[in-house]
Amino acid sequence: MDMINFEALFKISYGLYLVCSGDKNKGNGFVSNTVFQVTANPPQFAACCNKDNYTAEVIKKHGAFSVSVMDKNASAEMFGTFGYRSGKDFDKMANMDIKYGETGVPIVMNDCVSYMELRVVQTVDVGTHLMFIGELISAEIIDDTKEPLTYLYYREVKKGVAPKNAPTYVDKSKLIAKPAQLELKSYKCLACGYIYDEAVESIRFKDLPDDWICPVCGSEKSDFIEI
Amino acid sequence: MDMINFEALFKISYGLYLVCSGDKNKGNGFVSNTVFQVTANPPQFAACCNKDNYTAEVIKKHGAFSVSVMDKNASAEMFGTFGYRSGKDFDKMANMDIKYGETGVPIVMNDCVSYMELRVVQTVDVGTHLMFIGELISAEIIDDTKEPLTYLYYREVKKGVAPKNAPTYVDKSKLIAKPAQLELKSYKCLACGYIYDEAVESIRFKDLPDDWICPVCGSEKSDFIEI
Repeated sequence: MDMINFEALFKISYGLYLVCSGDKNKGNGFVSNTVFQVTANPPQFAACCNKDNYTAEVIKKHGAFSVSVMDKNASAEMFGTFGYRSGKDFDKMANMDIKYGETGVPIVMNDCVSYMELRVVQTVDVGTHLMFIGELISAEIIDDTKEPLTYLYYREVKKGVAPKNAPTYVDKSKLIAKPAQLELKSYKCLACGYIYDEAVESIRFKDLPDDWICPVCGSEKSDFIEI
Repeated sequence: MDMINFEALFKISYGLYLVCSGDKNKGNGFVSNTVFQVTANPPQFAACCNKDNYTAEVIKKHGAFSVSVMDKNASAEMFGTFGYRSGKDFDKMANMDIKYGETGVPIVMNDCVSYMELRVVQTVDVGTHLMFIGELISAEIIDDTKEPLTYLYYREVKKGVAPKNAPTYVDKSKLIAKPAQLELKSYKCLACGYIYDEAVESIRFKDLPDDWICPVCGSEKSDFIEI
């Protein structure tokens, strides 16, 4: 039997999106890298959402969602807000530039290149996640001078990692260990969960300058713990 | 009501893959840009396939498929073979470097960066397409020095277009016409169906050099007709 080399999965290309739902009273959303077109006629798109994710509940209730394509230069705060915190007791939309779609769902306009609004036509249970398949009801460019952020750029340049409930989360213990990496350590940001892994960085954590900040949420070096 | 600006859909990021199925006697496959991970535990991936596409039939029969991540420098012949021709009466695997997976499906190794083999666990009817959801049974890097091809690179650098039965095919008449484009023409490659659209190119077709060849299949300029 062949083995699974999880490194091979990193070769799948993704963009990064804000998938949002709800209404004017209460909106919520999360950063997703698995939004994709499933048919051209009519235009339908799918998005996967962890069942434990509050947004899954909100999409089920409202029967619609929006997808905003994140800008390559989206600020760290966007990841802090949408990527690592639950919106159950926190209004993620509070400081955002929001447009409300035809279905009433919030559409994040800041730090984004384009958006789509979709009405759910099918919900597929795929195990840990629900896949919402939506028919496109509107789409517009927000700023054509901006470039879409890709997951590759996020990982390589922004040093971001997938949170635990993402479809593409990889348990590092499953990766093939390289002997030289065995003595290397990992450090976790207590604010957003970002992992600084010495095995993939060129600088030891202790050698980072004191004013170094978390590339995801901007927390200070002292907010990290060894894991 | 908001309108649909189809240009906004071009901001969704995709990779390009060879999705194959069948066995040693008869294998088939096609170029897909909609392969994506749907869960991490277990690792499951989805791929959409047009119902009219011969590969859909083959995947249904074999209950398994392979996904090879195309190399950024994949040759034009790969697109000619897998992107624009039907495998019904033609052996697409004939000149390929093939490995056969645990399920017996062919896995294309040449011009590719990594591969995955998947067993179908769920088939979702999404209208014009079938979405095959497969559980990962093997994955391996083929060549780590190669970079994955993205749809953006294919469109911008290789000047490729989606064929008619792709989930991301866009009927150009739906794009917002720019006045300056109205007098521009399109030319179609009779061999592979590739469209040279003056509205998106910087050179008129007639001004292309005589030794210009189709970027997809390598056919000569004289094999193009005005459409």
